[in-house]
Amino acid sequence: MSEIPYKIYLSEEEMPKSWYNLRADMKNKPAPLLNPGTGEPMTAQELEGVFCAELVRQELDNDTAFFPIPQEIRDFYKMYRPSPLVRAYCLEKKLGTPAKIYYKFEGNNTSGSHKLNSAIAQAYYAKEQGLKGVTTETGAGQWGTALSMACGYLGLDCKVYMVKCSYEQKPFRREVMRVYGSSVTPSPSETTQVGKKILAEFPGTTGSLGCAISEAVETAVSNPGYRYVLGSVLNQVLLHQSVIGLESKIAMDKYGVKPDIIIGCAGGGSNLGGLIAPFMGEKLRGEADYRIIAVEPESCPSFTRGKYAYDFCDTGMVCPLAKMYTLGSSFIPSADHAGGLRFHGMSSILSQLYADGYMEAVSVRQTDVFEAAEEFARVEGILPAPESSHAIRAAIDEAMKCKETGEAKTILFGLTGTGYFDLVAYEKYHNGEMINHVPTDEDIAKSLAQLPQANG
Amino acid sequence: MSEIPYKIYLSEEEMPKSWYNLRADMKNKPAPLLNPGTGEPMTAQELEGVFCAELVRQELDNDTAFFPIPQEIRDFYKMYRPSPLVRAYCLEKKLGTPAKIYYKFEGNNTSGSHKLNSAIAQAYYAKEQGLKGVTTETGAGQWGTALSMACGYLGLDCKVYMVKCSYEQKPFRREVMRVYGSSVTPSPSETTQVGKKILAEFPGTTGSLGCAISEAVETAVSNPGYRYVLGSVLNQVLLHQSVIGLESKIAMDKYGVKPDIIIGCAGGGSNLGGLIAPFMGEKLRGEADYRIIAVEPESCPSFTRGKYAYDFCDTGMVCPLAKMYTLGSSFIPSADHAGGLRFHGMSSILSQLYADGYMEAVSVRQTDVFEAAEEFARVEGILPAPESSHAIRAAIDEAMKCKETGEAKTILFGLTGTGYFDLVAYEKYHNGEMINHVPTDEDIAKSLAQLPQANG
Repeated sequence: MSEIPYKIYLSEEEMPKSWYNLRADMKNKPAPLLNPGTGEPMTAQELEGVFCAELVRQELDNDTAFFPIPQEIRDFYKMYRPSPLVRAYCLEKKLGTPAKIYYKFEGNNTSGSHKLNSAIAQAYYAKEQGLKGVTTETGAGQWGTALSMACGYLGLDCKVYMVKCSYEQKPFRREVMRVYGSSVTPSPSETTQVGKKILAEFPGTTGSLGCAISEAVETAVSNPGYRYVLGSVLNQVLLHQSVIGLESKIAMDKYGVKPDIIIGCAGGGSNLGGLIAPFMGEKLRGEADYRIIAVEPESCPSFTRGKYAYDFCDTGMVCPLAKMYTLGSSFIPSADHAGGLRFHGMSSILSQLYADGYMEAVSVRQTDVFEAAEEFARVEGILPAPESSHAIRAAIDEAMKCKETGEAKTILFGLTGTGYFDLVAYEKYHNGEMINHVPTDEDIAKSLAQLPQANG
Repeated sequence: MSEIPYKIYLSEEEMPKSWYNLRADMKNKPAPLLNPGTGEPMTAQELEGVFCAELVRQELDNDTAFFPIPQEIRDFYKMYRPSPLVRAYCLEKKLGTPAKIYYKFEGNNTSGSHKLNSAIAQAYYAKEQGLKGVTTETGAGQWGTALSMACGYLGLDCKVYMVKCSYEQKPFRREVMRVYGSSVTPSPSETTQVGKKILAEFPGTTGSLGCAISEAVETAVSNPGYRYVLGSVLNQVLLHQSVIGLESKIAMDKYGVKPDIIIGCAGGGSNLGGLIAPFMGEKLRGEADYRIIAVEPESCPSFTRGKYAYDFCDTGMVCPLAKMYTLGSSFIPSADHAGGLRFHGMSSILSQLYADGYMEAVSVRQTDVFEAAEEFARVEGILPAPESSHAIRAAIDEAMKCKETGEAKTILFGLTGTGYFDLVAYEKYHNGEMINHVPTDEDIAKSLAQLPQANG
């Protein structure tokens, strides 16, 4: 029996007291958000119409390395954190690999994922600012659930626009949001101008994330005392999510373990950016080296097949422009693709780091992802979310390479959440009905051709 | 800030190395199982036709206080245990009570409940005996999922008979079982004689737990290399579940905390029996005193309105007779009752302890249970299972009594699992469509009138 336990839990005293802002250590800072009308960098004042003031400050600050975590957020974190850093002894044994595999499991809370780490922070600052509530959109419902939990706890109103087809087909997540007191509106709806317009134009539409974003933003800016919040992509979100990486690093340092490879799934980048933060910091400062791998779905390959350019964050093209690896804001991943990681772009921070060669990216096939998910579930006892399973796939692949070469590398990956609300996808996989959709070069070229003028 | 952390996790070294057999300290031992044909106590040999040999030994042993937990089971436990003992600071604050509330949370594993503690033990002994597989029945699917996880891990075949209406209406749990490699058959089925007979007699029936038990038992005894396993009621199950109470006690002792009141929900008694085991042991030996409260649904009130008598454990009347508080094996709780705790009887061990005055019982109303569940979810961040929420209801009630009297009592309750697969019930509650069914005295008298002859 090794000295490393199956699960490492930090004590409350060991938990991080500050978030770490990776940008402070980046030589090339992420490109600023641009005003889509003027093409000029968005000012704090402009952003404060949509976002809370403190969150705007966090969004724009490229220099401050550490932001103290307010006590009320630290107390909330204690309700479901520290999350365990797990040594995957059972998976290693099953694979017969000399690799040492660790994963940071973020699914032990009712939202089922890491999203809660930023949801509570965003809700907290909204309350501090004296706001009445926040608005957001949600697709499958993971982010909406996390935000509902945070708002329910703080007594803040929460208006969630849920893509209509998900609202109807995934009633469970909707009900969880209602347990936490949120109002959940199927989008498009009659509650906004943009919703009415879309309904008039496309009667019977089942909605899209782009439309839900537009409705949430409109509701935030047209209701006094409300702001809009977002669960990924933004710098502020990566800042809050750094708690994942900080806890992981403290736990590993405690046992003298240093990862050779760090792997995370990447949709908008919230989990990956959080997991790698302190490790990437060391790498940027030249204090240590790590192989860092972003894993994305073959059906939505922003890093591996996208372009590094300014683009809209939303398909409705109402949000500021962000410079990022993108497939074009009109790119819509196939409906055959399960779970999240459906975003056409990628966090600006991660995009700059990838452009500068600080990390790698791979894309994986959907059925290979579910094969890994099932293998993992059987030996590690956790039914993983499809999103997280992209990282599992890559981790298993790296561990199997170690088996070939006989190298005992240490692998750390992020297990972002559980798949309890994704069983329709598992069922499709079991029944052999899962389709692997890979966009053609033409598909991607077509949406990239519509990149905004800002790219000159 | 108090010195007690929000969550207490034992280290792996501190985890229990033996299960505790409460019967060893009982002056009045639980009554033996009877052969329904002869009315004589079941012998080990008779029981071994249905159950694994080692499990029969555990079932019948009223004297050995501690059973060492085999290393392979301890390793499996490390995959998802220790479970956290949580100080419910947020709930206390919300209630404004001077009471100190603790709960032992067993839901942090994919089966979503404590059932896995016994599932892995039963699967392990089946494998040790060289068996090919095990059979069982499942209603909502919690026990079936736990057993599937255990068998998937050990490479043992697992045949689950799932009540047909659940199989069709709750496809998610079925899919989780399939992820873990189990074969799941809707019951009644054509795979057994009893199933065929029922289908011929009642074409189009959606099945019952009693019928599923009969099919699982028939499959076990008619297939060489198979045995039947059960997730509650039996002495062996309470033995395995003692790990819940042992961990709780070690954690509380570590911080010098002694509960005044211990509360658990009670269906067949697996969680309650496990949670209270070491505390009840002290009480039986006269070393300490605790108020111990069993909480059952008003719609299935075995302790509070049942009779202490010999009865069948199954509605099919094929299993041995057990002496227990029972509503009669023909009693079927209203379909309006959500979640588990639907069993007409109660563990023989707990029944004897209740008869001897060592514990209390209360019954609670379904809508009051969901009200407590939602209140809890909003402040403690965990969406509780309907079963567990019975204990939450009683814990909140006791905490509110403390608020009235100003007493700072220490309350420990068992939070057996999560409600992620019970959202249809939550939806009914939100929509005001939840019905509180209370059986009439005539209902209960009618089923009690059919108690078997063995009661003389």
